[in-house]
Amino acid sequence: MAKVGIIMGSKSDLEIMSQAASFLKTMEIEYELTIVSAHRTPQLMFDYAQTARSKGFSVIIAGAGGAAHLPGMVASITTLPVIGVPIKSSNSIDGWDSMLSILQMPNGVPVATVALNGAKNAGTLAAQILGANNETIAEKLLEYKKTLREEVELSIKNLVL
Amino acid sequence: MAKVGIIMGSKSDLEIMSQAASFLKTMEIEYELTIVSAHRTPQLMFDYAQTARSKGFSVIIAGAGGAAHLPGMVASITTLPVIGVPIKSSNSIDGWDSMLSILQMPNGVPVATVALNGAKNAGTLAAQILGANNETIAEKLLEYKKTLREEVELSIKNLVL
Amino acid sequence: MAKVGIIMGSKSDLEIMSQAASFLKTMEIEYELTIVSAHRTPQLMFDYAQTARSKGFSVIIAGAGGAAHLPGMVASITTLPVIGVPIKSSNSIDGWDSMLSILQMPNGVPVATVALNGAKNAGTLAAQILGANNETIAEKLLEYKKTLREEVELSIKNLVL
Amino acid sequence: MAKVGIIMGSKSDLEIMSQAASFLKTMEIEYELTIVSAHRTPQLMFDYAQTARSKGFSVIIAGAGGAAHLPGMVASITTLPVIGVPIKSSNSIDGWDSMLSILQMPNGVPVATVALNGAKNAGTLAAQILGANNETIAEKLLEYKKTLREEVELSIKNLVL
Amino acid sequence: MAKVGIIMGSKSDLEIMSQAASFLKTMEIEYELTIVSAHRTPQLMFDYAQTARSKGFSVIIAGAGGAAHLPGMVASITTLPVIGVPIKSSNSIDGWDSMLSILQMPNGVPVATVALNGAKNAGTLAAQILGANNETIAEKLLEYKKTLREEVELSIKNLVL
Amino acid sequence: MAKVGIIMGSKSDLEIMSQAASFLKTMEIEYELTIVSAHRTPQLMFDYAQTARSKGFSVIIAGAGGAAHLPGMVASITTLPVIGVPIKSSNSIDGWDSMLSILQMPNGVPVATVALNGAKNAGTLAAQILGANNETIAEKLLEYKKTLREEVELSIKNLVL
Amino acid sequence: MAKVGIIMGSKSDLEIMSQAASFLKTMEIEYELTIVSAHRTPQLMFDYAQTARSKGFSVIIAGAGGAAHLPGMVASITTLPVIGVPIKSSNSIDGWDSMLSILQMPNGVPVATVALNGAKNAGTLAAQILGANNETIAEKLLEYKKTLREEVELSIKNLVL
Amino acid sequence: MAKVGIIMGSKSDLEIMSQAASFLKTMEIEYELTIVSAHRTPQLMFDYAQTARSKGFSVIIAGAGGAAHLPGMVASITTLPVIGVPIKSSNSIDGWDSMLSILQMPNGVPVATVALNGAKNAGTLAAQILGANNETIAEKLLEYKKTLREEVELSIKNLVL
Repeated sequence: MAKVGIIMGSKSDLEIMSQAASFLKTMEIEYELTIVSAHRTPQLMFDYAQTARSKGFSVIIAGAGGAAHLPGMVASITTLPVIGVPIKSSNSIDGWDSMLSILQMPNGVPVATVALNGAKNAGTLAAQILGANNETIAEKLLEYKKTLREEVELSIKNLVL
Repeated sequence: MAKVGIIMGSKSDLEIMSQAASFLKTMEIEYELTIVSAHRTPQLMFDYAQTARSKGFSVIIAGAGGAAHLPGMVASITTLPVIGVPIKSSNSIDGWDSMLSILQMPNGVPVATVALNGAKNAGTLAAQILGANNETIAEKLLEYKKTLREEVELSIKNLVL
Repeated sequence: MAKVGIIMGSKSDLEIMSQAASFLKTMEIEYELTIVSAHRTPQLMFDYAQTARSKGFSVIIAGAGGAAHLPGMVASITTLPVIGVPIKSSNSIDGWDSMLSILQMPNGVPVATVALNGAKNAGTLAAQILGANNETIAEKLLEYKKTLREEVELSIKNLVL
Repeated sequence: MAKVGIIMGSKSDLEIMSQAASFLKTMEIEYELTIVSAHRTPQLMFDYAQTARSKGFSVIIAGAGGAAHLPGMVASITTLPVIGVPIKSSNSIDGWDSMLSILQMPNGVPVATVALNGAKNAGTLAAQILGANNETIAEKLLEYKKTLREEVELSIKNLVL
Repeated sequence: MAKVGIIMGSKSDLEIMSQAASFLKTMEIEYELTIVSAHRTPQLMFDYAQTARSKGFSVIIAGAGGAAHLPGMVASITTLPVIGVPIKSSNSIDGWDSMLSILQMPNGVPVATVALNGAKNAGTLAAQILGANNETIAEKLLEYKKTLREEVELSIKNLVL
Repeated sequence: MAKVGIIMGSKSDLEIMSQAASFLKTMEIEYELTIVSAHRTPQLMFDYAQTARSKGFSVIIAGAGGAAHLPGMVASITTLPVIGVPIKSSNSIDGWDSMLSILQMPNGVPVATVALNGAKNAGTLAAQILGANNETIAEKLLEYKKTLREEVELSIKNLVL
Repeated sequence: MAKVGIIMGSKSDLEIMSQAASFLKTMEIEYELTIVSAHRTPQLMFDYAQTARSKGFSVIIAGAGGAAHLPGMVASITTLPVIGVPIKSSNSIDGWDSMLSILQMPNGVPVATVALNGAKNAGTLAAQILGANNETIAEKLLEYKKTLREEVELSIKNLVL
Repeated sequence: MAKVGIIMGSKSDLEIMSQAASFLKTMEIEYELTIVSAHRTPQLMFDYAQTARSKGFSVIIAGAGGAAHLPGMVASITTLPVIGVPIKSSNSIDGWDSMLSILQMPNGVPVATVALNGAKNAGTLAAQILGANNETIAEKLLEYKKTLREEVELSIKNLVL
């Protein structure tokens, strides 16, 4: 079955990026999570991207902070859809650097960018991509949308001023 | 076969958004392009989003400028992947408004955001999503990546200072 | 008598949005406060907006953070004046995202935007709107302006360097 | 009948601000348009704001560029609702200065801010404020919303790729 | 002898604005510090500005946060030089709002803007203005420059890695 | 009599900076205008700043674009008040670079910053500084304020919609 | 003798990047200029970076726009100093994207970033790097500094108001 | 042997700037670290820059916050390569001020700017500059790159979800 590859530039990104993994787990979607640094392990990044499809990945989620080149570089090598998660790291300029480094890719090499620190949404988007032509996942996403709605309905009921 | 829905908030977005259509055409991927305004035709937008999957769409590309709510609102209704194209319209604040309105979606409702005015890349990303588990499209994308490389190689050859 | 509807996208916005309610209470203006999420309960939002006038609301105050679509989407459905409160939520990009998502509405669908986290001022603006042709409220607003002035005068008196 | 006061800081703002007037004319709402500069005619501004209600105004629309103090200062003097229009003047820093100068008012003194150069929307918002408790205007606004929808529907029909 | 008027929009600005006073004290320059709010006490602000010269002030220092209209409005009324101190208040958008509201004044009505929270420098600038044609103050400023230099020289000496 | 020194970093700044000179001429205030580059003629800048007071200058106006160090460096050497004019040069990042380079001076070394390209206001501020204790200039500034007011009054009269 | 490698992501960058070449020519420093795209020719980029030192390069100048990954990725592979030139391309967000993508590199992998479109300065910096321990180049740079000074002195002489 | 000069505008910058020294120490590259303030000790800065080459320095690293003029001013005087470290000081506007003040230098006077607070990378860049034509340092840098890679490999091994 389809797999999602989750990578991040540094172990300090793990707390955020593991939210993508958690979401995929609730969707019963297989994933592999590891660390790949565009700047410290460029060859590993190349190998990862070049073999991603043949290893059975259907989507790659890549998170990075600062001058965040990982998502875009992986997208330059593979033809799989790459979801980019801008991370607001320390010394980042309020997250603007990672956001723009991931989002503003040139024609031919898109990165599907989600919100700052939005790893959970990266997981959701990966599920939506897999669910585009997969009824089981589509059902689960519908179910998930329902829980979102019910959470709001519950908070309305419990609203105390 | 899988279809891509391309929508935009205004006819003034057509020049940019038709680049998504053009790319899909070169990939021989079926698409339907129309105008749907979140703010001027909210009911139409609702209907569009709610029937998208049953009408055979697998991916939706939505472009909008200013306070760009179309991509996010469509994503709130459908479980299909939604690709958002921020458009730098007149009176936009340099595109920051559309970019942030599309990108910064809350948990549960992602929008796969591409670069400012990046409609061509939205088409490419849609093809990548469809190609994740489709060999024919994957082949074409590989071919496309080759043309990108060859363009650079040609411009190197022709380089005159 | 005229009523104000106060809505917010998430219960986490309550601490800020309840300041709108508190102000209206001091003005003895009736209000109803609840949670309506554009992204998690889009149908509820539609229903809320479509029935707002018939339910006796004269003004709607809507607060949201991040890609804040609630105020603008409500404004797309109702002809009542909608006051938008940008909220600086966690993972927001310093509030710029919610501010621009609410403010930069296209022609035809205005949102009366107040300052970041400015829920108290949203309450004040709602009172001013109701007071435009209502002498009682106008009197109370004049009285309120007087207390603002007196607060400054008192702090001048108590000024110790 | 209720009147709207439209003011602007400089005659160079007229091209944009007259769009508020045009909209009110189509709504058959009475208005008075003039120039009042916070910085060059502070006394005139004071007098304008202090007598606005007694002269029969129900809403004031104030547009200004750069360090745009006109809307906020008028709001500090009158209890009428004040709609602020940030104008992207020459030498403005991309409109950020006027936008923030108008929007970020302190508690007690709100300005209902609309989009950059959004004078037409200021007119619409003024009509919505007057229409909150006025059936005739409310009807016209509903009619206007219909024309917005029909414009989109027409552009869909005429869509040629 | 020449006096400096120090005003601020709110007592919450006192901690910062008192640094201007402290500096003037070390320069033995007379000053008066008080609270004047453009938005809550507009009439008081008018009176303050209109009588400033006749009361013997030579320079005015005005600090404010958010949509900071105090320095510019005082400058619109008096012909005295007005020094503006942008203050990074709570709910400010990182200080950009107060900075731009004070700095971007239109032709004819300058405000001598100093750095964010730069009240001490406002005091220094006031002293420089008074010292432009006053030998005693000029001497003290030269002395102050010397202490700045000596501080650096001392920190060089004490530098331990 | 008191003189104003006007300097700029490059001859390309002349079109804007000559507006300061023009204003001073109308005020009959003596000035000297020249080019001094912090980065290309650092020694000249040092000499200029160190001899400014002894040469009879009372105020210095310094304009520069990009990484604009001229105003701050002159202020680091002289105790005269230095007015800084941020200039939006080509390749500037929308003027933000020159604005922040001039405004954000550390404690001890203020620069009286005016609006982007605000050379005319720099001239006005210089006149206000000289007029703080000079009745003749103060009278002229009052006269100038009157012409500003009359311009607005005239544009009100001539207002045609 | 030492060589400088000049690369850029696209032939559209040539107009700007050739200014680096021109400067090196005036310094009589050997260079090679070509096109290398991080996103369209990632393998070429790898090869370029990995062989740069052995091919006799001492410094690399890399220019790119948008999500500009070329300078940082080259720096991740070679230990040569890499000078990055942010380019303000079309659809760039005012140059902020390329600037931050190049500048905000993580620890271990610096890029010596110059100003937006600052290719000429990249050439100057390359010369300074080579001239750090090379008397001939150092002499030429001193000569160049002299011409900069003389240009200013000439423009002072020719100054006509 | 070649030396690196490390300077900073204030002792408060020491915690960050000492990271440049630490890196050079691990590379066994000689350095001298001291405090030089452009604004408080301009003459010292001049002397430092003018004698830097003759004192045996090959590279200068200069860090400063706010309106950060130190790196650019040193670069205006010496022909040595100057590496600039923008520092996010208190009252800085999120670091934008120091970043732009250092980066946006005019043609002729480059500063090799590194990331915000990126003093360690400034040390690395200095080593790369010295290593461009020095085999021993080049070897050490290659070794350093290897440790960066090994750190990532170790964190992959230790990855626990």
